Amino acid sequence: MQAIDVIRAKRDGEALSPAAVQAFVSAAAAGGWPDYQLAALLMAIWLKGMTPDETAALTRCMADSGKRFRWDDVPGPKADKHSTGGVGDKTSLILAPLAACCGVVVPMTSGRGLGHSGGTLDKLDSIPGFRVGLSEDELRTALKTVGVGMIGQTAAVAPADRTLYALRDVTGTVESIPLITASILSKKLAEGIDALVMDVKVGSGAFMKTLPDARLLAKSIVSVGTANGLRTEALITRMDAPLGLMVGNAMEVRECIDTLRGAGPDDVASLSIALAAKMVALGTGVTIAAGFAEVEEALSSGRGLEKFRQMVAFQGGDPRVVDDPALLPKAPRQRVVTARRAGFVTALDAYKIGVGATRLGAGRATAADAVDHAVGVRILAPVGTAVKEGDGVLEVHYRGDDTLATALPLLEAAVEIGDAAAAPAAWLVEEVK
Amino acid sequence: MQAIDVIRAKRDGEALSPAAVQAFVSAAAAGGWPDYQLAALLMAIWLKGMTPDETAALTRCMADSGKRFRWDDVPGPKADKHSTGGVGDKTSLILAPLAACCGVVVPMTSGRGLGHSGGTLDKLDSIPGFRVGLSEDELRTALKTVGVGMIGQTAAVAPADRTLYALRDVTGTVESIPLITASILSKKLAEGIDALVMDVKVGSGAFMKTLPDARLLAKSIVSVGTANGLRTEALITRMDAPLGLMVGNAMEVRECIDTLRGAGPDDVASLSIALAAKMVALGTGVTIAAGFAEVEEALSSGRGLEKFRQMVAFQGGDPRVVDDPALLPKAPRQRVVTARRAGFVTALDAYKIGVGATRLGAGRATAADAVDHAVGVRILAPVGTAVKEGDGVLEVHYRGDDTLATALPLLEAAVEIGDAAAAPAAWLVEEVK
Repeated sequence: MQAIDVIRAKRDGEALSPAAVQAFVSAAAAGGWPDYQLAALLMAIWLKGMTPDETAALTRCMADSGKRFRWDDVPGPKADKHSTGGVGDKTSLILAPLAACCGVVVPMTSGRGLGHSGGTLDKLDSIPGFRVGLSEDELRTALKTVGVGMIGQTAAVAPADRTLYALRDVTGTVESIPLITASILSKKLAEGIDALVMDVKVGSGAFMKTLPDARLLAKSIVSVGTANGLRTEALITRMDAPLGLMVGNAMEVRECIDTLRGAGPDDVASLSIALAAKMVALGTGVTIAAGFAEVEEALSSGRGLEKFRQMVAFQGGDPRVVDDPALLPKAPRQRVVTARRAGFVTALDAYKIGVGATRLGAGRATAADAVDHAVGVRILAPVGTAVKEGDGVLEVHYRGDDTLATALPLLEAAVEIGDAAAAPAAWLVEEVK
Repeated sequence: MQAIDVIRAKRDGEALSPAAVQAFVSAAAAGGWPDYQLAALLMAIWLKGMTPDETAALTRCMADSGKRFRWDDVPGPKADKHSTGGVGDKTSLILAPLAACCGVVVPMTSGRGLGHSGGTLDKLDSIPGFRVGLSEDELRTALKTVGVGMIGQTAAVAPADRTLYALRDVTGTVESIPLITASILSKKLAEGIDALVMDVKVGSGAFMKTLPDARLLAKSIVSVGTANGLRTEALITRMDAPLGLMVGNAMEVRECIDTLRGAGPDDVASLSIALAAKMVALGTGVTIAAGFAEVEEALSSGRGLEKFRQMVAFQGGDPRVVDDPALLPKAPRQRVVTARRAGFVTALDAYKIGVGATRLGAGRATAADAVDHAVGVRILAPVGTAVKEGDGVLEVHYRGDDTLATALPLLEAAVEIGDAAAAPAAWLVEEVK
């Protein structure tokens, strides 16, 4: 199968045969086609799309391009959650231990933050000693003994995705439903899981800015996951304002521990519970109501917090952070962004806060940047709060005056104050099964 | 101007600004963007198109990416003809000396054959000693003393086109009206001419297979040439069967000499005269009727043949070929393709004959292949001829049994014989001004 024939077929709007998809993915994994042919095909896919069957084949071939974990010797159904990314989106650290208390095994692989959105690995890295680079044997032992392990993606998993993602990033071909679907699901299929709950974010701080786009992606992922034998459901959830009150790695870990202790913000707790309940229901076959009941019991009983502590300890982290969050990194200085006038907080723009936090050092502009785990933004006055002029709205945790100076204008611009009290939007937009 | 921004704009169907077009072309000429970004943009252009203004800017930037000849010190208007290519398409060698007899100067640059279609340079190369690689000074002297020079494109001309054409060839982005327009016209603008006549071929042996496509290209070239200050008109002409009776380099040179002597096939003579008359009219400002009269006089008087002889001599070729075509290379063996049954020749498929001739060695499958100037195909029974079973239709001039064996099935398949006498189609389809 020649590259030029595959490119021409897609350019002309044809559906690629399974053999053509396989040739494309093999070339991406092994370097068989020059980058310019891959790039031309990616642009043709971006503009002409792919059918559900093509997308399912692409996903399967990409998963098969590298290592696929098998956990046959680990008892119990394997389940995971994946989010399209957002600001303050910290639910993985809460729901993974909760779900692991309720009959599912959670072999979670995550990525690092890039651009305005955070990454689970960076949050975990802020726990002193925590190792996200477990070997396969170590992860297997974690799953057998703790029931949950949280690791980074290794080079052995879905190498075709790594090649294609790097090319998409520099050729304007990122925002394609079939390509996004295949990129996400190939790595999840490679995890060796039985069930997946997808959290598709929508709003200013999300990859998908509009509900129609989010709905297309959610439906694509559910159908392609299911076509590949993965029980998959999705929630579409709001990402107009940050999730919870903390943005920044160590600050978010602290909020996760608070939530597992029953003292977290409502939105963080309820979204984490809903996602975990779905993982349990999809993974074990109980009803969703039973899933909710189990997860809520795991939370209220403190078993979830205990599971989190075990996971931290197994992965080399200092488990004392659970009881003494002061052991987490802390930025040396704070600065408060205040209300410019009296009224109600009507918006806290997630995108601007995300970019602002990145400029403080909490995230990366490029993959090579280092991350400052201590810095971030704490929300003092969430959307809907009545404020007087001069009241604190955001508390900026920073290290250097230079980073503060670049972040502050964005953080100030993120705050909108109006005359009418608007209740914050519900986090759940809709479910996709 | 960042590559990614230009790619995204075109991907989203926007018209590129002149600055964006300039950035693209500069990058193609100087290697400023990686090939994969150029390839992604080419595919986006293929699928989303370009406005006439964008195409005009692309053409101008590509011409400016390299050397642009200036002939201010050569008296007289400069004019040229360009064809989109075909089989047996040999008019350049006839019309260039004819036009040079009638008040225009012809600084013609041509290409080599590739695929099924022939190239003017390969035909000229079949004349013993002929040099297509004149220096600029030599060409200037040719224009001043002979009035015509026929050379190959040099690396200094339109380097952006060379990069982009090589990429288009391997990324399925050749067949794009704006990209074809810019590729052709950038090189013609760089020739330093005032007037251009375009011969857009349509039919099985042409690049454009259908009249709507040919019309789009002709209109695009006329409007973009005119927008760049080049007086441009086009003829759309048939390429269903080969032009004339000879296909193959030395065999075509012989037919050109015959035509300049007044003894060529009607279609070759009348198309060459029509194109030359347009060059004269556009170049000197006389009416098209006056252009025809001047060119016909140059032909009938033998001045055209004399000009051809002068050109051959100036460029180092053996001028005795004009009087003694036996000095041209000649294939050692002939084989006749006969009529399978009685009837009328209803088609001689130009594409199949072109590929057949290439397999004999007359053309190139890849740019690196060597050409056998002697081999080719002579048409014994043109379309419309009544034949009996066993009558000769094609005379194959070949060198080796191996090349004959690969060519013969195609040549045999090119001949269609039917029951009804159909007159050959007129070569002129329509004019575009």
